[in-house]
Amino acid sequence: MQQRVLTGITTTGTLHLGNYVGALRPAIAASREPGAESFFFMADYHALIKCDDPARIERSRLQIAATWLAAGLDTERVVFYRQSDIPEIPELCWLLTCVTSKGQMNRAHAYKASVDANTAAGEEPDAGVTMGLYCYPILMAADILMFNAHRVPVGKDQVQHIEMARDVATRFNHLFGAGEEFFVLPEAQVDETMELLPGLDGRKMSKSYDNVIPLFEGGEKALREAIARIVTDSKLPGEPKDPDSAHLVTIFDAFATAEERAAFRAELRAGLAWGEAKNRLFEQINRQIGPMRARYDALMAHPEEIEAILQKGAERARALARPLLDRLRHAVGLRRFQPLAASAAPVAKAKTALPVFKQYREADGQFYFKLSAHDGRVLLQSQGFAGGREAGEWVKRLKLEGAAALAGAPVALGEGVQADEVGQALSALQQAEA
Amino acid sequence: MQQRVLTGITTTGTLHLGNYVGALRPAIAASREPGAESFFFMADYHALIKCDDPARIERSRLQIAATWLAAGLDTERVVFYRQSDIPEIPELCWLLTCVTSKGQMNRAHAYKASVDANTAAGEEPDAGVTMGLYCYPILMAADILMFNAHRVPVGKDQVQHIEMARDVATRFNHLFGAGEEFFVLPEAQVDETMELLPGLDGRKMSKSYDNVIPLFEGGEKALREAIARIVTDSKLPGEPKDPDSAHLVTIFDAFATAEERAAFRAELRAGLAWGEAKNRLFEQINRQIGPMRARYDALMAHPEEIEAILQKGAERARALARPLLDRLRHAVGLRRFQPLAASAAPVAKAKTALPVFKQYREADGQFYFKLSAHDGRVLLQSQGFAGGREAGEWVKRLKLEGAAALAGAPVALGEGVQADEVGQALSALQQAEA
Repeated sequence: MQQRVLTGITTTGTLHLGNYVGALRPAIAASREPGAESFFFMADYHALIKCDDPARIERSRLQIAATWLAAGLDTERVVFYRQSDIPEIPELCWLLTCVTSKGQMNRAHAYKASVDANTAAGEEPDAGVTMGLYCYPILMAADILMFNAHRVPVGKDQVQHIEMARDVATRFNHLFGAGEEFFVLPEAQVDETMELLPGLDGRKMSKSYDNVIPLFEGGEKALREAIARIVTDSKLPGEPKDPDSAHLVTIFDAFATAEERAAFRAELRAGLAWGEAKNRLFEQINRQIGPMRARYDALMAHPEEIEAILQKGAERARALARPLLDRLRHAVGLRRFQPLAASAAPVAKAKTALPVFKQYREADGQFYFKLSAHDGRVLLQSQGFAGGREAGEWVKRLKLEGAAALAGAPVALGEGVQADEVGQALSALQQAEA
Repeated sequence: MQQRVLTGITTTGTLHLGNYVGALRPAIAASREPGAESFFFMADYHALIKCDDPARIERSRLQIAATWLAAGLDTERVVFYRQSDIPEIPELCWLLTCVTSKGQMNRAHAYKASVDANTAAGEEPDAGVTMGLYCYPILMAADILMFNAHRVPVGKDQVQHIEMARDVATRFNHLFGAGEEFFVLPEAQVDETMELLPGLDGRKMSKSYDNVIPLFEGGEKALREAIARIVTDSKLPGEPKDPDSAHLVTIFDAFATAEERAAFRAELRAGLAWGEAKNRLFEQINRQIGPMRARYDALMAHPEEIEAILQKGAERARALARPLLDRLRHAVGLRRFQPLAASAAPVAKAKTALPVFKQYREADGQFYFKLSAHDGRVLLQSQGFAGGREAGEWVKRLKLEGAAALAGAPVALGEGVQADEVGQALSALQQAEA
């Protein structure tokens, strides 16, 4: 089955070499694998939470879009869009807001960290906390569920948000699904082997440590200057150097083949001067990103071309978002008024006559389903499953294969229910599915 | 000046006679007054907060739309729409969410009432509270600010929400306005003389007291039956009755002229039987709402006609909402990427070169404005005003009339600022406005 993978990036700054190695490059590589259907978006509604400087947001959106494109995103293959070009997302966000419990938002890490910091400083717990920060996980759930993404590559700090998206999806499916599942339950994909590039000082490269090497901004000159500032030990030219204790080598590795890595290490052991090593590093990186930088500069000189690409991406994204949102609106009761003859009567009849499967999650964290008769009596009750997908697959089998699938299914009959009533109910569903 | 008046009604039930007398009839009358520009909408996104029964929401939306139309709403004159047909509203809701402080939502009455009830019951404070309930004032602010309504007729329990809408509007204007005011500050219009119709038992007519007289639903029969259940004293036919102690008379009054009121009272004093009095009351009410009920029934038989009216209304509403949202998106930085020549440079130059007025509200609750030079120095600082409008009018005068308006203005020069620098700044603004 096609696996939908969704990646968003908040547009409040520019990207550095660490972002490229740790996120862009692997994400672009993954998007080229067969079976993957990738969604890349600029999370500019999220950017508004942290940043009230419009010029910075405008610049960052452009730079980040140009960076993705220059780094080799194939926009024929992936869906590439700006979040704020998809009006279906804030609307879905409101639908989800109505089924999200406040208690769950209280437990979100980012919010709790703000409260802890305020409390430690002797402030009111919510001092300086905006509703944007507080509601952020709901918008993120809308981002993911809007496109029914199966997998969301995230850092560990974001795993909780994916779980919240699963919870709200489960709750919505349960409340309004009547046997239909609107939302796939997304899974966090935490890459433990993700390459964390060291920065100038050897700590993780990060803007907050002020130790970054720029990716494209500032051109070759800025790249060369940053590399010159990488901290090394004070061994002189000619002295043998230990490649394994130099983070300069780790950076080199991220851009080199096995042979190049071995050769570089041998030279250092043989006494290569740090200045010369930095020249080699510059050449090595620039060979890979130089051509991209040229594309980046060309794109930045023609924002209208990026705009055209993003408009096409938004069109593709909305072609998926619109039909799903229409189904959701119908499910919650936001329906167009139809001529009487064509509307309620037959639909209502079909709905009440057929038994329905419901999937849900219990307080024990496990996933369940049940089959209810049109009058609400429980006909079948499943055991608990560790994952929602497994429960969903059983429901699918029972719907498609009917009573034939019953023998091996991990289910029990409802209280006072005879097996043949269940058989008839499943046959009715089977015919309705056919 | 045209005064925009905005009225929303949540679509979770049907309307009764008390709603008609207290809300529909006066709102429709007000919409016919010269100088009023009225917006009526069905708050169906709000309905989702309280109600997860799609059939009920669907039915209620249709019934309430038909009721407004049958009661005489002139849809050529007023803008009549469903909230959920305006995708600009949830988008604006998110923009406002980002500038709303969480502390303010903590103080909302409806939320606090839930917390108090939970605490009294020994539950967690947020037990059963959804994010929909918690965020509701932000959506309501979006409803109002989307159309820059001047006045919002509300009950006393809603006054706080209008104040919250004013606060978030002020904050947005201040953060992103750069001298431009996007939002009018709306005012709550609490009608102290609003007719509160008594119900069957003499208490305020309300579904929660189960004492309502239906407006259209159930036809004449239901109206007559409900009136028969109005509680009276046990005076016999022929005994004189005291009209002033009978709530049946209060209901009669709401549908009668002065002469009819006097005549009814005289008959009761002369011993009119309660049964006969109820017949008179039925005739009196039915004379007014009977023809409306016929229209209501005709409309309910043709939902597609209501749909067409609402689609037209949505078109008119969106023709106003779209340009404002576009300005807001531009202000926060969500801009289309333009060819370089046409974009950033000149705009940025004009922005940095001109001084800017900013309006804001202080912790003391008063409204202020200041004029800042392009380098951020404060040139002028206003005194505090009780209302935002007064401050806004001074800003407008200073922009239009320049230094000439300075003499009488309630402002002080910034620290170390000379009067002639202020004069030049105002002249520059005056030219830019011209």
